[in-house]
Amino acid sequence: MAEPVFRRLVLIGVGLIGSSVARIAMEKRELAAEVVASARTQATLDRVMELGIADRVELDPAKAVEGADCVMLCAPVGAYAALAQAIAPHLAPGCVLTDVGSTKQSVIRDVGPLVPEGVHFVPAHPLAGTEYSGPDSGFTTLFQGRWCLLTPPPGTDAAAVEKVSELWRRCGSMVESMEPAHHDRVLAIVSHLPHLIAFTICGTADALEDESRQQVLKFAASGFRDFTRIAASDPVMWRDVFLNNREALLEMLARFMEDAQAMARAVRWGDPTYIEDRVRLGRSIRRSLIELKQA
Amino acid sequence: MAEPVFRRLVLIGVGLIGSSVARIAMEKRELAAEVVASARTQATLDRVMELGIADRVELDPAKAVEGADCVMLCAPVGAYAALAQAIAPHLAPGCVLTDVGSTKQSVIRDVGPLVPEGVHFVPAHPLAGTEYSGPDSGFTTLFQGRWCLLTPPPGTDAAAVEKVSELWRRCGSMVESMEPAHHDRVLAIVSHLPHLIAFTICGTADALEDESRQQVLKFAASGFRDFTRIAASDPVMWRDVFLNNREALLEMLARFMEDAQAMARAVRWGDPTYIEDRVRLGRSIRRSLIELKQA
Repeated sequence: MAEPVFRRLVLIGVGLIGSSVARIAMEKRELAAEVVASARTQATLDRVMELGIADRVELDPAKAVEGADCVMLCAPVGAYAALAQAIAPHLAPGCVLTDVGSTKQSVIRDVGPLVPEGVHFVPAHPLAGTEYSGPDSGFTTLFQGRWCLLTPPPGTDAAAVEKVSELWRRCGSMVESMEPAHHDRVLAIVSHLPHLIAFTICGTADALEDESRQQVLKFAASGFRDFTRIAASDPVMWRDVFLNNREALLEMLARFMEDAQAMARAVRWGDPTYIEDRVRLGRSIRRSLIELKQA
Repeated sequence: MAEPVFRRLVLIGVGLIGSSVARIAMEKRELAAEVVASARTQATLDRVMELGIADRVELDPAKAVEGADCVMLCAPVGAYAALAQAIAPHLAPGCVLTDVGSTKQSVIRDVGPLVPEGVHFVPAHPLAGTEYSGPDSGFTTLFQGRWCLLTPPPGTDAAAVEKVSELWRRCGSMVESMEPAHHDRVLAIVSHLPHLIAFTICGTADALEDESRQQVLKFAASGFRDFTRIAASDPVMWRDVFLNNREALLEMLARFMEDAQAMARAVRWGDPTYIEDRVRLGRSIRRSLIELKQA
């Protein structure tokens, strides 16, 4: 067994991501010698103890982080500012503060200024998830073969970055560093926009007159179903992602809407070549993914 | 073994759908005593004979349909008018003419007026597919547990409708009749619009500057990947579907675009309640699908 990366790992939030990290940490004891979980409600913490996925739970995040050498924020990104405010005075010097949020500029904006001298701030984003949430939804293989992107601000302690990288490698991830603005732009198109579209088309279908609405559900297998899977995600998490990656998301959505309007125009005026070219492009992108083994 | 539904089944087009029907027909001999395949190119027909999925092949559709008691159009819907023109004079009285196209008003518009007296026209649409195409892509379980929608014009011979229904039930499908305009509207939202969106977002991603484009492919697993799967479909088939379900598709796209603009506005101006409500709606629709066992 490898020496644990950290002595005491504190997870603030034990939903899908937090509880998966907790499970991995408890199973192999290679991430941390001790696992402490904090959550917004005592009910969640009771469930964490029932599940046996932490050594100790603590409702008050300020108390939870005391004596930790790694604190990982696993709450929706909209809660980060208040959490950082609450825990900052209690972080021990040398502690590594990291997170798992899907937006990185907002995390640096909200948390960065509050990080005490001597505490190492290493924002991270594991690109993994399912449509389920809560402490019961986590599992130990969630991160296997998936990317984890780190966006450490310039000048971040290299040893701290390496420790966070090692933690994620031990979760099964491939780790890469990226500039935060670039991260937010790439994620806007690969993740945030597809989710926004999926939520939206569910609403569009839901608003149809009654008979059609029932039949949409009945005949969903024809394409719509694939959209509903990603639309089944956690409302608070996604609300926060959209609001905290506003600029990049709105830009990608605007580009997409222009392209959809161009497609609508080709359908209305009957431009078979344009339509066929766009479908071919979709097919070629799928092929690239298969070649890159991402499909 | 059940008595075959038809004596001689002629498939015009042997792509994913046609070659799946051919495989089922050849395997169990319960659909037809004899299977004849016709296609646009001799190369496809040679492949059909190599695969052993028809008793006989015939390049000329007019010759292929001679003596058939069932002719099934399995070509892209844009080819139907010319095909109907070519085969109509050669259809035997009492023959059942059916199809598998994804748009039903256009099929009735293009084929209906050419159907000779005494030939029974039963438009059909099996709701099944994969992103693959061509005679190699078919398989015998493609239609199992999937719907097949029939849109027979008023006054269609009931015995002919029952024979087509029985053919699809023997393919493993559940069969239901529907009014053609209603079919086109429901399919526009459950299938055509999701495909249009998927093709479009692939184009949007492809148009990004080089570095981001590469990273979109690399990090596709975060949602984008689910869209590319349905975007990998056959270009000619989908071009024809879009152009032949123009009105319903443009209406559903317009509704979707309005809803997406409303979401954009909520993101821009920071309306957390609106966003959360829309995500919750997506989740509730997914739950309805799971209850209906369509997920």
